[in-house]
Amino acid sequence: MNTSITSPHNKRIKNLLQLQEKSRNRRKENRFVVEGLRETGLALTGNFKLLEVYFCSEFLSENEFKTLPDFENSDAEIIEISSEVYQKLAYRSSTEGVISIFASKENNLETLTFKNNNPLILVAEAPEKPGNIGAILRTADAANVDAVLIANPKTDLYNPNIIRSSVGCVFTNQIATGTTTEIIGFLQQRNIAIYAAALQASEIYTNVDFTEASAIVVGTEATGLNQEWRDAAKSNIIIPMDGAIDSMNVSVAAGILIFEAKRQRSFL
Amino acid sequence: MNTSITSPHNKRIKNLLQLQEKSRNRRKENRFVVEGLRETGLALTGNFKLLEVYFCSEFLSENEFKTLPDFENSDAEIIEISSEVYQKLAYRSSTEGVISIFASKENNLETLTFKNNNPLILVAEAPEKPGNIGAILRTADAANVDAVLIANPKTDLYNPNIIRSSVGCVFTNQIATGTTTEIIGFLQQRNIAIYAAALQASEIYTNVDFTEASAIVVGTEATGLNQEWRDAAKSNIIIPMDGAIDSMNVSVAAGILIFEAKRQRSFL
Repeated sequence: MNTSITSPHNKRIKNLLQLQEKSRNRRKENRFVVEGLRETGLALTGNFKLLEVYFCSEFLSENEFKTLPDFENSDAEIIEISSEVYQKLAYRSSTEGVISIFASKENNLETLTFKNNNPLILVAEAPEKPGNIGAILRTADAANVDAVLIANPKTDLYNPNIIRSSVGCVFTNQIATGTTTEIIGFLQQRNIAIYAAALQASEIYTNVDFTEASAIVVGTEATGLNQEWRDAAKSNIIIPMDGAIDSMNVSVAAGILIFEAKRQRSFL
Repeated sequence: MNTSITSPHNKRIKNLLQLQEKSRNRRKENRFVVEGLRETGLALTGNFKLLEVYFCSEFLSENEFKTLPDFENSDAEIIEISSEVYQKLAYRSSTEGVISIFASKENNLETLTFKNNNPLILVAEAPEKPGNIGAILRTADAANVDAVLIANPKTDLYNPNIIRSSVGCVFTNQIATGTTTEIIGFLQQRNIAIYAAALQASEIYTNVDFTEASAIVVGTEATGLNQEWRDAAKSNIIIPMDGAIDSMNVSVAAGILIFEAKRQRSFL
């Protein structure tokens, strides 16, 4: 017999809302909220531990999420919620009827594993906008990069806007966070060449050889990459621009650089 | 002596708010609103006709916008507004104190001019999100493409969110709109090869020669490009993806394709 909640004032529902809204609560409880059946499935596939499932039988049957791959291996608590409660929790207008709670991952640099000796890694320094982070994670998934490293994140990865704008790619990429110094140390220790996308830079990106172990680093649009990155770089690289304004979106710049590396690697 | 407005209930202020909010009003009046000193300067540089300037002397002096390039050639009406009125009109928290009204351009295909015989053109079919359109226009400016064509636009170009997210690149690019049929006709008449980024496609984009007159066409993320584009294309092209989800943001995909063309053209 499932637990059933019909009041939006229920304590667990209030807690769930806080978890959606506040980074602090997600960090403290080491849990986060996922909306949607597909996204719940992607998080399961990404080996996130499912803790609780809230479903509204008006929109989907219990069987629909129970047949998700890997669901049977979870011992998640299943809670039925009323339509009124669901409407309070759901962000999307396209109602799918399922909201899940997963355990956060640590995203430690030390837990990263690489399939081979010439990984391609994307590093983003202090990205701010959830939409840009989401777009970067989509590109990283499509390019099947070996890892995405986020230096000095301004928000936690489990921000609902990042989950949404990444269309679930926050679950499919290998992601780690750290300080700039930690990430540079990690890359240098493994002989992974650092290519820093600087605003004033020396090498045109297409003249650089990305076929060996490479980390492509993009900074914030406003300030570019700091001296620490530029000093650690094997090359500082630039996308030649020739317009009136010359200001590219950071996720677009990351896409252009990563897919130049993919081209050089024959898309393997 | 300037006109001066101190009441947020003033009729002109109400009209200006409507112009910011409603595409229908912008279309009917053939005018649109620009916020910020830099953006006003970019629109002037882009040969948009300045009609009215609203400035708040608490934030900037009249001289500051009068020294903008091309300002002296405009016969715009200058209206001083109180801080209260300005706060009502301004979207940004970083207050710059100037709001301008410009005349819309027609954005007709027929008015486009090309510097040479092998233009590089970016076409977006029915883009929806202002943020994506803004990012596409930034890339187009940085790549100095010859024109951006928008087929079946879902919103008018002078939507405040497009102006903002394009950081003014909506003023620096040569832009035209039309139906799919009109744009295909325009390109074919000028012997500009069409390369359609399809979801199921034949050619890897790096195997295509973009050095001749080329139009790169991107569709919506959800549905891709329709049969009309695919039939008109010299090649249907694809960015090879190799991830778990394989869904790239449309502005990132456009950036990767345009900069592959730029690479082939030696960034000239």
